[in-house]
Amino acid sequence: MQGMKMNKLKRNERVAAIVKILSTNPNRIYSLNYFVEKFNAAKSTISEDIVVVKKTMEKMELGKITTITGAAGGVKFATYISNEYTKEILDEMSERLNGADRILPGNYLYMTDLIYSPYFMNRASEIFASKFSDKKIDYIVTIETKGIPLAFSVAKLLNVPLIIVRKDSKITEGSTVSINYVSGSTGRLQRMSLAKRAIGQDAHVLIIDDFMKGGGTVRGIIEMMFEFGAVVEGVGVLIATKSPKGKLVKEFTSLLTLEETNDEDNNIKIFPTNM
Amino acid sequence: MQGMKMNKLKRNERVAAIVKILSTNPNRIYSLNYFVEKFNAAKSTISEDIVVVKKTMEKMELGKITTITGAAGGVKFATYISNEYTKEILDEMSERLNGADRILPGNYLYMTDLIYSPYFMNRASEIFASKFSDKKIDYIVTIETKGIPLAFSVAKLLNVPLIIVRKDSKITEGSTVSINYVSGSTGRLQRMSLAKRAIGQDAHVLIIDDFMKGGGTVRGIIEMMFEFGAVVEGVGVLIATKSPKGKLVKEFTSLLTLEETNDEDNNIKIFPTNM
Repeated sequence: MQGMKMNKLKRNERVAAIVKILSTNPNRIYSLNYFVEKFNAAKSTISEDIVVVKKTMEKMELGKITTITGAAGGVKFATYISNEYTKEILDEMSERLNGADRILPGNYLYMTDLIYSPYFMNRASEIFASKFSDKKIDYIVTIETKGIPLAFSVAKLLNVPLIIVRKDSKITEGSTVSINYVSGSTGRLQRMSLAKRAIGQDAHVLIIDDFMKGGGTVRGIIEMMFEFGAVVEGVGVLIATKSPKGKLVKEFTSLLTLEETNDEDNNIKIFPTNM
Repeated sequence: MQGMKMNKLKRNERVAAIVKILSTNPNRIYSLNYFVEKFNAAKSTISEDIVVVKKTMEKMELGKITTITGAAGGVKFATYISNEYTKEILDEMSERLNGADRILPGNYLYMTDLIYSPYFMNRASEIFASKFSDKKIDYIVTIETKGIPLAFSVAKLLNVPLIIVRKDSKITEGSTVSINYVSGSTGRLQRMSLAKRAIGQDAHVLIIDDFMKGGGTVRGIIEMMFEFGAVVEGVGVLIATKSPKGKLVKEFTSLLTLEETNDEDNNIKIFPTNM
């Protein structure tokens, strides 16, 4: 229907279309004129439609509609989820992860199915997007590989680009900045790289990763961000281990906590972090 | 509002909430009872609401609502985009990629900003989800790293898990299957690995990657899928090079084609593939 005028729509129909467009393109500003043209309707009509959408999203706790005034103004959808719903999701994830069949040789936890699941990563990203919605964030930063689905989901909800720091130095992205870092859990020296043109000046970033034990990798990403002159607005990880308590990163938000209760029995316990 | 009965909602409000829930959870089946309970409304009322939603999505070309009958039945949203909109998106992407400042030493194309952009990858994934919507697909499969955001976006729209094949053999995911493959463009022998428990039996998969030149990597993934007894339902890549014409993979869908018109001038041209 692009570029084609259509018969007048009913309020129901306009409301349905506005909700679809806004909620599947979170944090993207749509001008009122966009809808005026798309629906062949008066601006006052569209304004009334948006009031209906806004009130419903709030009443049903499905999201937040914000109106931006001025020349570049318009309306946008932001993720909002209640504490109650957050708790439900985290309980569901913990339950999924607490199974003896998930413990691998070396006392690793098999969690690939969860961290590559669109359903769970969307829910987890809604929690982070809600939590960091009041911060000015220009980029989501992660390191390859397992944190990418979660980080990309957060990037989508906040409508900002994703930056993936590479562990491989053979990257074909032009000039790069590389730094060495010490893995907090293994103590080994490792290297991470990022293309110089990946991040603009004076950027504010949110770091997202799937797992934190010693915190060495995230500390490396933070140092990399300093090299780019970027401000780190926050760190969010899906799962953090309970020990060591003294991690190399002091401030971070974890959704779930992993406790190794007994190394000999390969006993692993996961529970929602008290946020 | 979870678990709490609320005052009767107006049709507008129910329609808005249904659109939000269905369209941000594509391909996920919601029973009519889910809405009956959530809205404290009669089943016949919900049925009428869904008719409004269905008609509007179709009329505005915003998606497709399908009703599934039977015990596990309900209603779901599927991505649908028109050929006209597909063309618009591919033109926009081509325009973004056709810039002399994107050519890197070695005649590589800098496209990280585009392939890590939620906006563009969501649009690209809508095209793939539309195209492969009639296939039975259990998993989306990709190989680390650059194709992950696109592959995960497609996985989200089709509501199936993502599988990421690793180039690193040090993965901590239990027993793995590893295969050697020859990179079609460099001719070098490489190795890819996947955890044995990553894929269930008799799976049908769709392979998604960001870039294809010789086709060796995708051919490797296809061979890996044979090892798992999986059926490959299709291959989708964002960008395929025009040459070599004889790629190691015969059947694939590419959204964009990259033509190196003149190696000496570092001249690169990108255009929508004639699908």
